[in-house]
Amino acid sequence: MTLVNGIARTVVDAQDRGLHYGDGLFETMRCDQGRVRWFARHMRRLELGCERLALPRPDPALVRSEIESLLTARPRAIAKLILTRGVSAGRGYRPTGDARPTRIVAAHAWPEPAATPFRAGLSPVRLGCNPQLAGIKHLNRLEQVLAQQAARATGLDEVLMGTESGQIVCGSASNLFVCLADRLLTPPVDACGIAGVMRSLVMDAAAQLGLALYITPVSAALLAMAPALFVTNVRYGVQPVDWYEGRGLARDERCMRLQEWIDGRFD
Amino acid sequence: MTLVNGIARTVVDAQDRGLHYGDGLFETMRCDQGRVRWFARHMRRLELGCERLALPRPDPALVRSEIESLLTARPRAIAKLILTRGVSAGRGYRPTGDARPTRIVAAHAWPEPAATPFRAGLSPVRLGCNPQLAGIKHLNRLEQVLAQQAARATGLDEVLMGTESGQIVCGSASNLFVCLADRLLTPPVDACGIAGVMRSLVMDAAAQLGLALYITPVSAALLAMAPALFVTNVRYGVQPVDWYEGRGLARDERCMRLQEWIDGRFD
Repeated sequence: MTLVNGIARTVVDAQDRGLHYGDGLFETMRCDQGRVRWFARHMRRLELGCERLALPRPDPALVRSEIESLLTARPRAIAKLILTRGVSAGRGYRPTGDARPTRIVAAHAWPEPAATPFRAGLSPVRLGCNPQLAGIKHLNRLEQVLAQQAARATGLDEVLMGTESGQIVCGSASNLFVCLADRLLTPPVDACGIAGVMRSLVMDAAAQLGLALYITPVSAALLAMAPALFVTNVRYGVQPVDWYEGRGLARDERCMRLQEWIDGRFD
Repeated sequence: MTLVNGIARTVVDAQDRGLHYGDGLFETMRCDQGRVRWFARHMRRLELGCERLALPRPDPALVRSEIESLLTARPRAIAKLILTRGVSAGRGYRPTGDARPTRIVAAHAWPEPAATPFRAGLSPVRLGCNPQLAGIKHLNRLEQVLAQQAARATGLDEVLMGTESGQIVCGSASNLFVCLADRLLTPPVDACGIAGVMRSLVMDAAAQLGLALYITPVSAALLAMAPALFVTNVRYGVQPVDWYEGRGLARDERCMRLQEWIDGRFD
């Protein structure tokens, strides 16, 4: 079931700038018992994306009610919101006049839980760096598609992606945390990558639980020596990596404490 | 008028991967007297894009006949082809099973000729580098949208874009050539940028006319001193830059010779 600008439809205009240029944003949200979890965090990131792209921000109450209207029968679901610059801003890269964004809301069955053991590797596909696009969840996702396509033959559950300069920034669809004995590390997402909602929850949880956590560049060499890793997104939650590039990893006890704190937060 | 997989439609499926991820390619083609110009060059670039993205290549004869079926009444037109991974490859970054691509063909009125004098500047928006995506005309075009959006207030006709490391690679919708006294230069497009059809025609024309042309990195400092510049795309042809960053430029006589050679080539 899909709503396009509030109307039940399965199609969008073939001239939509979301299709032509990836000129838009998206959010993927977990829904429990008919309500969107961590909704305010999703809307804050969407708002940052709207500022960066100079897109009018949709009314959060409208977005929430549209999503929740699709959820009635499901105990848990995934909702996806796509917001594009629409059609009226015209053809050609330069947006003209007033954008009337296209707002697409859909709900899907909650996906299978992540595999156990959870296996990750390093992708040969690199992330291009652009500070103006970093952090936000925009629709230009070919790097992630290529990384997952390359991973298909390997049977990996997730692949980590880095920059040309050798920094490892995130998974193709997740954020990355490194567990050292006395601290947790997560890479900055100011040159590429996405500022994940689950990442923000982990950071808040760590602060509340008194766990040291630093945002700091992470190299492939550090990953190769790390005793434990975890990846996060709203689907996985806090997902320990059991196997990284052929090496078995321990599950760090901090993962469970973080997950428990996050499970207790609806917003 | 738009054809979606050969059928007259104005809409595409809201689940299309072209919309969700920019998972696809496009071509913008000049059509004269009901026929597509330089068609084989467009199809070669499309084929390279299909290889990079592991997309099935459409039948060129089918694409040509679809475009030309839309052209009857117009002496000159712009045709746009979009090829996406479609719907059947599924949701999520990882494409599953067999893609049945979506093929969208549309024709539009030939746009106004470029302004005279033609004014260009340097964009504050950078190009991210990714060799796997460089050269091909994929649907991830937010950098170009941001560059044109930033240029809207300046009245510039085109903005040149560079990398974080300071190489200037192309215009937002064109390739770049620098005219020095004894040679022409154009930047490589193997880390970012698009291998333009008009760029390839200029390179062939230069070879045939005995004009020295080198593919070589171009810095902002070189541009600031260059006696003449031109930009190319299938809409502009060979477009001399009359004004760059506040400095008037000469029109180089080689521009007209290149344009004449290209005008004489239909394919």
